[in-house]
Amino acid sequence: MQTAQKALIAEFLGTFVLVFGGCGAAVLAAGVPDVGIGWLGVSLAFGLTVLCMAYAVGHVSGGHFNPAVTLGLKLAGRFEGSLPAYWAAQVAGAVTAGAVLLAVVAGQAGFEGAGGFASNGYGVASPGGYGMMSALLIEIVLTAVFLVVILGATSAGAPAGFAPIAIGLALTLIHLISIPVTNTSVNPARSTGVALFADGPALAQLWLFWVAPLAGGALGALVWRAITALEAPPAPATPAE
Amino acid sequence: MQTAQKALIAEFLGTFVLVFGGCGAAVLAAGVPDVGIGWLGVSLAFGLTVLCMAYAVGHVSGGHFNPAVTLGLKLAGRFEGSLPAYWAAQVAGAVTAGAVLLAVVAGQAGFEGAGGFASNGYGVASPGGYGMMSALLIEIVLTAVFLVVILGATSAGAPAGFAPIAIGLALTLIHLISIPVTNTSVNPARSTGVALFADGPALAQLWLFWVAPLAGGALGALVWRAITALEAPPAPATPAE
Amino acid sequence: MQTAQKALIAEFLGTFVLVFGGCGAAVLAAGVPDVGIGWLGVSLAFGLTVLCMAYAVGHVSGGHFNPAVTLGLKLAGRFEGSLPAYWAAQVAGAVTAGAVLLAVVAGQAGFEGAGGFASNGYGVASPGGYGMMSALLIEIVLTAVFLVVILGATSAGAPAGFAPIAIGLALTLIHLISIPVTNTSVNPARSTGVALFADGPALAQLWLFWVAPLAGGALGALVWRAITALEAPPAPATPAE
Amino acid sequence: MQTAQKALIAEFLGTFVLVFGGCGAAVLAAGVPDVGIGWLGVSLAFGLTVLCMAYAVGHVSGGHFNPAVTLGLKLAGRFEGSLPAYWAAQVAGAVTAGAVLLAVVAGQAGFEGAGGFASNGYGVASPGGYGMMSALLIEIVLTAVFLVVILGATSAGAPAGFAPIAIGLALTLIHLISIPVTNTSVNPARSTGVALFADGPALAQLWLFWVAPLAGGALGALVWRAITALEAPPAPATPAE
Repeated sequence: MQTAQKALIAEFLGTFVLVFGGCGAAVLAAGVPDVGIGWLGVSLAFGLTVLCMAYAVGHVSGGHFNPAVTLGLKLAGRFEGSLPAYWAAQVAGAVTAGAVLLAVVAGQAGFEGAGGFASNGYGVASPGGYGMMSALLIEIVLTAVFLVVILGATSAGAPAGFAPIAIGLALTLIHLISIPVTNTSVNPARSTGVALFADGPALAQLWLFWVAPLAGGALGALVWRAITALEAPPAPATPAE
Repeated sequence: MQTAQKALIAEFLGTFVLVFGGCGAAVLAAGVPDVGIGWLGVSLAFGLTVLCMAYAVGHVSGGHFNPAVTLGLKLAGRFEGSLPAYWAAQVAGAVTAGAVLLAVVAGQAGFEGAGGFASNGYGVASPGGYGMMSALLIEIVLTAVFLVVILGATSAGAPAGFAPIAIGLALTLIHLISIPVTNTSVNPARSTGVALFADGPALAQLWLFWVAPLAGGALGALVWRAITALEAPPAPATPAE
Repeated sequence: MQTAQKALIAEFLGTFVLVFGGCGAAVLAAGVPDVGIGWLGVSLAFGLTVLCMAYAVGHVSGGHFNPAVTLGLKLAGRFEGSLPAYWAAQVAGAVTAGAVLLAVVAGQAGFEGAGGFASNGYGVASPGGYGMMSALLIEIVLTAVFLVVILGATSAGAPAGFAPIAIGLALTLIHLISIPVTNTSVNPARSTGVALFADGPALAQLWLFWVAPLAGGALGALVWRAITALEAPPAPATPAE
Repeated sequence: MQTAQKALIAEFLGTFVLVFGGCGAAVLAAGVPDVGIGWLGVSLAFGLTVLCMAYAVGHVSGGHFNPAVTLGLKLAGRFEGSLPAYWAAQVAGAVTAGAVLLAVVAGQAGFEGAGGFASNGYGVASPGGYGMMSALLIEIVLTAVFLVVILGATSAGAPAGFAPIAIGLALTLIHLISIPVTNTSVNPARSTGVALFADGPALAQLWLFWVAPLAGGALGALVWRAITALEAPPAPATPAE
């Protein structure tokens, strides 16, 4: 029981850092003229939150920091803990991060409200004006890819110790592709953590950033199961023909 | 046989991610004003696709994701599988990625066609207006360098587990140099996967992005064989002087 | 004693590189039009100083390069050396770096003084005009996160050898978020090393960049102790009910 | 003897990639409007050449790719091969890279000459207008730092296998700081490889980019020897007081 408590604190902390770091970089530093970090910097920030926190507390909780990851690992038979407890810790960490970030932002001279606040969106709320179908498609595909990387890099065949690098940088990759489409979620907790504070349609569109990442996480788990099912061909019951 | 099937799925998936991720970043996020990721972001995206997928499924298929790599490894005596099967899986993954990417792009408000679609080219289709000889030269040289890195980093003398980092970041390096010249191929499957959907001369110029990478892959394998041939000097038949 | 001497030289060198590299990149290369490295490049530079020097001399001194890190490690029971000696070596390295950097900068045609010199600040001295409360909050939170990454990535449960990657890139992440707010300290030695040479209110505001990072370092140590306290549940004194 | 031959080929190849990759990125991709990679991309490219080639052929030759590194390792007692032979292989690789790069560049529509060709310089040839003293100072200091990272990360106390990451990214860091001052050398072979083809004062200023890096390499070796001299205190000849 105490081990489980520790894991939930780790998930809370990791998701806090993911949202405070990734969305914080987006809100505070992305769009500053001339020296701003742009979407490349935001992509790097999101990836590094996972890389760093997976090395820090991955051995405590598995380092999910994302309800879609927890679901995918569960479906792939790689997670034996409590899915609802993990989800609750992740969402709590994300919302706490959103609140702390807002407190920082509110201290800027001329502050006039949270604005988009790095929230996810489609249609009018998509950074590049992509519609709902594009948003669904790319969130599902990229979350599935994310799960394949996670399941593959932490499998017994992969070299030990490198998984946080592969997984963190996969999240960077995912952002490099999809920020223009949805501002990139692949993580319902991350979307929730800022949607609660954002102006605009973020809350009304939040459903998609639960549905699509969870569907993608499940799809990734299925793909991985399909690959590994081929690993050990069933021993023939009879000497066969 | 089941192992081979699994390897082909891995090659399909890896090349899918390479094209969807690398070309997706280029098409969706590179040229956006102010916050766009530019060629640096595209270079990083291509490299990270290989880094991540090599950790994920490299232990399943070797993690080629590229017909020129498969050829080079074959010529260097490091690949015992079926070259045509690998090529087919890679091209299928690349073309699928191109199709899915087009579906995403088509959902943008004001969509008017695929345009260049991150295709490779020379002459009028070169981003910086470089001619065919420059294109041939740089694609051959850089694919050869890529193979040297791959063969070296996966050789017995190199530290174990780090090869995906070296190989993925080599692809990033290659893009940092050569995007202006050819939009960077070094991978016939990647070129094919988007040429089928692109407007302009991409299909007509596709031959170069098979010929040059394959020639470069072979050249890299020869260079590596030349180095390793020196490794074990032939024992003298006689005690000699 | 000789070992301690060696460790102090290592801390001097490491902090020298951190300030010369991180602040040097900021002063020399960040704001150059068109090709300048921007805040993304500065963030990378700071992180790489720690990554590189931790691999170089981390086995000599532990690789703190930061008084807040030394305090946090002390409070977490992970550092048995002399805290005042480490702090002195760190500040000496940082100030030396500031002086050498000024000598380089003074050789530029049209040099007119050190200017802001990459110093930290709040209010009018904040790059984005953030007030003192925002500065205190973000410096405390991010230094605490830094310590959690350091303590976690170097703990027995984490994979061996990777800690400098996690810790260095955590410093990159921290800069990606907070340069707009305070120009990012999380390190009193770094702040001191340039404040002594900077024009403007840097020295007058230096107190905050000792108070907040040290408070954050202590907070991070407490958080980590809270997690690990749950690790080994106390054996019941009696067989219990 | 055959082993030495192999090492020289490896040094030739590695320095070829360093110059073709690093200077190639600078010449071809750095200054392109809007999507160009800038100095950040060039810094990354230089670092990745060393990271990748050190994993590829570091086990063959030690992976110096730089006369200043070979000198520093020699002075630190870490290199038993032939310094002149290594220097010759490195310069040959660098000059070959310069020639191949020029062949690529010459194929651009509207080509009018090599121009600066990523050569190093000071005074009027410094990107930011820094004078000779600034150039000497920063090249000496940064080459010394480079050698400390190399000697430290490859020492017995450092975690095995990670040195190419630390060393390659140290070269990235060095470029992030010093491109504005000298266009960054820290490597006489790299400077020579492009100075031969560049327009302007590159050849006339080449002496500095041999003198300063070699002096810095020697300084770094001395610093490292000073640290390690403290490692094993001499056993007292007598039981002592």
